[in-house]
Amino acid sequence: MSILIKNVLLNGTRTDVCIESTKFSKIGPAVSSQGKSAIEIDGSPFAMLPAFYNMHTHSAMTLMRGYADDIELHSWLTDHIWPLEKNLTEDHVYHGARLAALEMIKSGTVFFNDMYFFPHGTARAADELGMRADIAPVLIDGCDPAKAGELLAFAKRTIVRSSDYSPRVRFAVSPHAIYSGSAELLKGCAELSQREALPLQIHVSETLTEVADSIRQFGLRPVQYLDSLGFLGPNLTAVHAVHLDDTDRSILKERGVTIAHCPSSNMKLSSGSFDYAAARAAGIPFVIATDGACSNNNLSLLEEMKIASLRAKDRSGDPTVAPAREIFDMATAHAARAAGLNAGRIEEGMLADCLLVRLDHPTLTPPGHLISHMVYSAHPECIDTVICDGRILMRGRKVEGEDEIVRGANEAYRDLISR
Amino acid sequence: MSILIKNVLLNGTRTDVCIESTKFSKIGPAVSSQGKSAIEIDGSPFAMLPAFYNMHTHSAMTLMRGYADDIELHSWLTDHIWPLEKNLTEDHVYHGARLAALEMIKSGTVFFNDMYFFPHGTARAADELGMRADIAPVLIDGCDPAKAGELLAFAKRTIVRSSDYSPRVRFAVSPHAIYSGSAELLKGCAELSQREALPLQIHVSETLTEVADSIRQFGLRPVQYLDSLGFLGPNLTAVHAVHLDDTDRSILKERGVTIAHCPSSNMKLSSGSFDYAAARAAGIPFVIATDGACSNNNLSLLEEMKIASLRAKDRSGDPTVAPAREIFDMATAHAARAAGLNAGRIEEGMLADCLLVRLDHPTLTPPGHLISHMVYSAHPECIDTVICDGRILMRGRKVEGEDEIVRGANEAYRDLISR
Repeated sequence: MSILIKNVLLNGTRTDVCIESTKFSKIGPAVSSQGKSAIEIDGSPFAMLPAFYNMHTHSAMTLMRGYADDIELHSWLTDHIWPLEKNLTEDHVYHGARLAALEMIKSGTVFFNDMYFFPHGTARAADELGMRADIAPVLIDGCDPAKAGELLAFAKRTIVRSSDYSPRVRFAVSPHAIYSGSAELLKGCAELSQREALPLQIHVSETLTEVADSIRQFGLRPVQYLDSLGFLGPNLTAVHAVHLDDTDRSILKERGVTIAHCPSSNMKLSSGSFDYAAARAAGIPFVIATDGACSNNNLSLLEEMKIASLRAKDRSGDPTVAPAREIFDMATAHAARAAGLNAGRIEEGMLADCLLVRLDHPTLTPPGHLISHMVYSAHPECIDTVICDGRILMRGRKVEGEDEIVRGANEAYRDLISR
Repeated sequence: MSILIKNVLLNGTRTDVCIESTKFSKIGPAVSSQGKSAIEIDGSPFAMLPAFYNMHTHSAMTLMRGYADDIELHSWLTDHIWPLEKNLTEDHVYHGARLAALEMIKSGTVFFNDMYFFPHGTARAADELGMRADIAPVLIDGCDPAKAGELLAFAKRTIVRSSDYSPRVRFAVSPHAIYSGSAELLKGCAELSQREALPLQIHVSETLTEVADSIRQFGLRPVQYLDSLGFLGPNLTAVHAVHLDDTDRSILKERGVTIAHCPSSNMKLSSGSFDYAAARAAGIPFVIATDGACSNNNLSLLEEMKIASLRAKDRSGDPTVAPAREIFDMATAHAARAAGLNAGRIEEGMLADCLLVRLDHPTLTPPGHLISHMVYSAHPECIDTVICDGRILMRGRKVEGEDEIVRGANEAYRDLISR
């Protein structure tokens, strides 16, 4: 199947864009499509932009959106979230992840990196809605090395089922954190991810408590402890990484680790203040992510870009920090690269992921500052069309089956809280 | 004219709501409308909520959205904004304010407190779009007392023309700041606002530079300097008030001043960190505002509520600070009270300002946490209908004449930058 988008605004110029199969095949004036079955879109009301890549979420936690806000972290987890999660089934996760995928598509996101229970529920949802995803079962052995083997076996059983899904949907490896996983589990995860060439992800240095506990228990800060286990490498996304010292930053840079910065979640849970300017100065690649809907409480990278920039300026006292273009690139090209995708830019030969945004939308007015508008002003309604892997996931803001997705999530939520 | 909304979700219960003329006339089960000309709305897909009141903006600055981002404050003003503003006409302001009004209505706002040039341009825009507004010409004498009289005369000439507009549109008094206005101007403004019972507004203690300059020049911090001039009273909204000490807070509390807290603008310009918890503890009434689109860059109080809460939690290190209900009340009931309006709550006899929000919207799913969802998750698309003063301003997300408003703003922008 091919899609021809005529006369769309791309990087300030009107052009035609042809998509064949999963890639941008031809970009230029007066392109004509090869096949007869082409969908043709009049691009004149729109600008074409890269789509967004969300590098950390727990998608099924949409079911817990608003369930426990404005609560201290320890009580949030132990009194509210964990008791509810004990009753989760794969069906709940499927419906929660469908709602998350719907919400992400409607805010321009085509890829998410997921860490949660029942990975097949999430994989099925991502696959059905046409998204890309790296999905990892969250591995927690409660620091009991006797349980590590069983969890690693579960991860392996998950991974071998990747052929059940489209190649857009991949599995990944994610121990939850150093305070919930034994050294055996962490080492096993690192080995598994390297052997199978899979993405690796972990929450790290999210709170000062985590750092203090790590120093007390291991004599090392979290990043340095993970390094001592051989955990750090270019396939790792270190989530949060709020509390870093200069040594931590040097190590992350040297090992080629990517940081997933989740400003809304860090602020909502009062986890502490990620030093954006220091991470940039250290040359560590970092990307922006929403975290789960339970600590954000939405999954819009549009909003996350703005909050990331505002917070970086605020913390540094320097309004020139985190300019719009830098932030936009983090949520698009840099994130796609971190996910190992040949995507995130609109160029011939790259994967056909893109957005058509409405140039007549009030929040994108006046024209001429499109990237600034996307970062600081836009909200999801600006996005008319979302294309992922050469397939239209949303057109005119309609996603196929959205009413039924919302209904399914509502039913799953009612079932979950009644257990 | 009357509007009957049947079977809408209000405070967790299904009910009917009748609006007669400008007020909620009857709320309860099976209400029937008096007149035959009633508009009847099926409320079953919706929840009814109070609308938002934006306590500080410069609405016509929508024309400068994205014009100068990521720039240090002094250069932002002197190299970018002020040179452009020199060429402004009333026609530019009218078109910029129409765009602002459109954007505010589409994000659920029915009132704005405006401080800018050419107040009649803004008043005409607010009136035509059916919004409430307090509109003040921004008064700047460059600290030259010889010019104060002329500016005060201009303010008086503006005020007497209030009968040109609907009673929804009122005029107000606003010297820009202590560093741009002479003591004569500030005193004259305070007297004028008291004599005419008009709202008074000023930017105060926005930056550390302002505080340091005030101490050097007057031997007093900005709040204390204003107090020495008799400027502080219950009709004053002190905008920003970022840098306050305990004495400042005591004085503001004692004088009954309201603070307009503008978190996005403060963060984007790196102005400093408003101490939410200390202002609460001091018992000072404060409300949330967007500031202008040039330093935000949108006018959505939905987004501003979230950023206000997240920032307060982040700054205090306490996730229980600034809970959703408190923040929601600030943007609705508290702001309406600060504006002297009998509005902000949906009760019989109160002014009929309200929203109908879509209960099937993904970001308001699952149900049951509506206020949390509005603060932390919602974006404007959730809002289907906006009613102000008993009149429907938006239905099914359509505002009358919106295409023409966007076109007019685009033309005004092109004209402005070509001068």
